[in-house]
Amino acid sequence: MVSELPTINLKAIGIVKNEITQPLKHGWEKVVSEVVVNPSLSEALDNLDEFSHIIVLYWMHRHLSGEAPTKVHPRGNREIPLKGVFATRSPNRPNPVGKATVRLLQRQGNTLVVEGLDAIDGTPVIDIKPYIPGYDSAANAGVPQWITEG
Amino acid sequence: MVSELPTINLKAIGIVKNEITQPLKHGWEKVVSEVVVNPSLSEALDNLDEFSHIIVLYWMHRHLSGEAPTKVHPRGNREIPLKGVFATRSPNRPNPVGKATVRLLQRQGNTLVVEGLDAIDGTPVIDIKPYIPGYDSAANAGVPQWITEG
Repeated sequence: MVSELPTINLKAIGIVKNEITQPLKHGWEKVVSEVVVNPSLSEALDNLDEFSHIIVLYWMHRHLSGEAPTKVHPRGNREIPLKGVFATRSPNRPNPVGKATVRLLQRQGNTLVVEGLDAIDGTPVIDIKPYIPGYDSAANAGVPQWITEG
Repeated sequence: MVSELPTINLKAIGIVKNEITQPLKHGWEKVVSEVVVNPSLSEALDNLDEFSHIIVLYWMHRHLSGEAPTKVHPRGNREIPLKGVFATRSPNRPNPVGKATVRLLQRQGNTLVVEGLDAIDGTPVIDIKPYIPGYDSAANAGVPQWITEG
């Protein structure tokens, strides 16, 4: 069954515009970005501004599929021992899809203005979803110590 | 710029196995599923069981791209007025990628046992990430009333 894993074809629905041309180590929280959506999908953004936060799925296009290591040092910090890549948020993963929860500041036509999106200028966007606390968050979630170190 | 939206090719990394053959209206929270990952990626799951919760991105393969309406009735409930599809979690969206936060019960080799994954048997999995509260959740997030109605 696993030997029949399918190939999946997506078409980007929009693109990130901001002033960030190289990934930041810190400070994404305050970055303001525009998510410019294909004008033909503009109506699909209606009602989104009734939510304070949204989820953005995006394609980390500088990281190609199929070239990912199975283990990485979290945040590129060699002082932290290697971890399985699925236990990290490294962009260097089998399918380099990023997922961010961001504040929605404004919607104008086919453009969303968001705060906290950790994606560089020109990043293709795959999907936009409303953030729903009872569904998207987990109470009392446990994480290992290395996730907050370094 | 938006006219040059790229096509994105992904290869599923695994597949969902459970007893659910048709989407449920309610009750996903208690569904236990296996996520069986390509054996060549088994090592990439190391350290994931140090987290209580994980995020699963999956391909809602019964919903084809490019056929999505821009507006839908949330949860198929016609008593709720049409909303922009990106303001809903409808699977019938331009790129039918699902995102679930689930409890990780167990990891054995290339198999994860999870609780609360709202995906039917045979669903292809795109990515697995650790759930990190400070990054993935938003405090005091606001949602409209219709999201919890009906």
